[in-house]
Amino acid sequence: MSPGGTGPTTLAQLGEFALIAELVRDLPASDDVLLGPGDDGAVLDVGGSVVVSTDVLVEGVHFRRDWSGPADVGRKAVAVNVADVEAMGARPQGIVVGFSAPGDTEVRWVLDLAAGLRAECDAARVNLLGGDTTRGRDVTLSVTALGTLDGRAPVRRDGARPGDELAVVGRLGWAAAGLLVLSRGFRSPRAVVDVQRVPQVPYGQGAVAARAGATSMVDVSDGLLADLGHVARASGVVIDVRTGAVAIDEPLQTVGAATRVDPLLLVLTGGEDHALAATFPPGRVPPGWTVIGAVGARQDDGPGVTVDGAPFAGVPGFDHFRPGARR
Amino acid sequence: MSPGGTGPTTLAQLGEFALIAELVRDLPASDDVLLGPGDDGAVLDVGGSVVVSTDVLVEGVHFRRDWSGPADVGRKAVAVNVADVEAMGARPQGIVVGFSAPGDTEVRWVLDLAAGLRAECDAARVNLLGGDTTRGRDVTLSVTALGTLDGRAPVRRDGARPGDELAVVGRLGWAAAGLLVLSRGFRSPRAVVDVQRVPQVPYGQGAVAARAGATSMVDVSDGLLADLGHVARASGVVIDVRTGAVAIDEPLQTVGAATRVDPLLLVLTGGEDHALAATFPPGRVPPGWTVIGAVGARQDDGPGVTVDGAPFAGVPGFDHFRPGARR
Repeated sequence: MSPGGTGPTTLAQLGEFALIAELVRDLPASDDVLLGPGDDGAVLDVGGSVVVSTDVLVEGVHFRRDWSGPADVGRKAVAVNVADVEAMGARPQGIVVGFSAPGDTEVRWVLDLAAGLRAECDAARVNLLGGDTTRGRDVTLSVTALGTLDGRAPVRRDGARPGDELAVVGRLGWAAAGLLVLSRGFRSPRAVVDVQRVPQVPYGQGAVAARAGATSMVDVSDGLLADLGHVARASGVVIDVRTGAVAIDEPLQTVGAATRVDPLLLVLTGGEDHALAATFPPGRVPPGWTVIGAVGARQDDGPGVTVDGAPFAGVPGFDHFRPGARR
Repeated sequence: MSPGGTGPTTLAQLGEFALIAELVRDLPASDDVLLGPGDDGAVLDVGGSVVVSTDVLVEGVHFRRDWSGPADVGRKAVAVNVADVEAMGARPQGIVVGFSAPGDTEVRWVLDLAAGLRAECDAARVNLLGGDTTRGRDVTLSVTALGTLDGRAPVRRDGARPGDELAVVGRLGWAAAGLLVLSRGFRSPRAVVDVQRVPQVPYGQGAVAARAGATSMVDVSDGLLADLGHVARASGVVIDVRTGAVAIDEPLQTVGAATRVDPLLLVLTGGEDHALAATFPPGRVPPGWTVIGAVGARQDDGPGVTVDGAPFAGVPGFDHFRPGARR
């Protein structure tokens, strides 16, 4: 097959089986892959318990082809799923991918997407274990990521305790800043646009946090305050974020100045960064993590999140089915 | 929430988080579920190695809402995926589900689909471990099924050896017969229409075959000859199907007579039944399985499948991206 040459240029011309053959050609696999693609299922040695998480990315909802190239879409699909496995304190090992697209989709576009999948698998050190391709009106990527706990207990959302320190690793606010400038027709600052296209997940830090004794951990996908809210309610505690400890990175200041949006708002409520936020017993925060707050006992108004000791006025959530949701 | 009452009737009205809360309410879980839905990932004790397989079902491609009710769609999505795990000789343990649908989808329809998912999970003895819901133009279900090998080696496609017996368990041809009558505007025989809507997977027989010493196994999803072709090529053997040993069940005879389609063609080439086909050393075929052929050495024209010792003239495959593909 020679896409771009005289070969088939659309999926309908290429056909399902030729597409699959192309997608799995020369696929690398680590030693824990006991059986890769090509059978009814793949087999992965997880050494006891497996962590599994799934996410669906739909064109027009999670990505736009005019904003993101196919390689970006493939990389993002891997990154957002692997981040969930990281957030359980597990070591990500592999993914399976469900892919649907219209028959007139260009083969070149799909192969570039597959190249992005592979590149991010390589960055995350996970194996592509298999998948399924089918026809559909939307370009849709459903990725399921698997990882092993290596004998550890999972780091859940309900383990934060009063006295714990709150720390984060990874980008915060960058993806939202990228979305903001893209939605206004700009393509810079390039750094935040790139993060909107492909989140920079702090691969390996989930297991680092687990080994350091993290009491709770979450992947920041809906926004820092929203995701900490999940932890606070599950743990029955109050989590306080100290804004003085939160870094407002330079590109966020630039975007804030240009758009008249408070960059702190981007950091506290922006989603899609897929940083990790975790709570640790005092003195146990591992190197590379930034302490941005603390855990306290629940007050009269129940568990929740405060900012500098007070309730935060804002709308930290995002709902995929509401009309008028962004994009 | 009271769908059907005065509550929200569409997904856009209900919202993503309320939908998820409804979908996971009172979810049963077996002892090997160390952590169920609600965190970044679920944790499943697989005791060493996990078998994983994924399939995507798209409205208009894999199901039609005018032919199948929501509960049928949910049950089918579970069945076709768990069948793949069975076909590896594993014991299915859990699934994760990615779901996308338009915002104006009726909540009632989605809850009925979720009820179907749960009913089939119960039949297959698997746990619903988590999922993701999002907006999309097509109703799409992407299911990833996981299972444990319980310390056994996986039963692959490449292990068939000359001298082995070929045996099957489950329905063959029924789903294709159901499709045939539905596509001509009929709704009976009900038995085959039901199987088209929800395949009757022989749950538990994958592990039975593995324990009996199956040398290769496959889930019959594309059609018996097509799927045996995968096994024959992977194993480097010729697999011969003896038509005299193949059961032509009564409803297939009825459909054949009414439609002037040879019912043997339905059995040999019909897809979507999700029966299991396996090869066994002589005398090792377990009770409940039907011997329908044998494995021989590859001949001059390479590995492949024969019917009563001769090549079969037909088109056993199905390609999701080709125009004019059925439905």
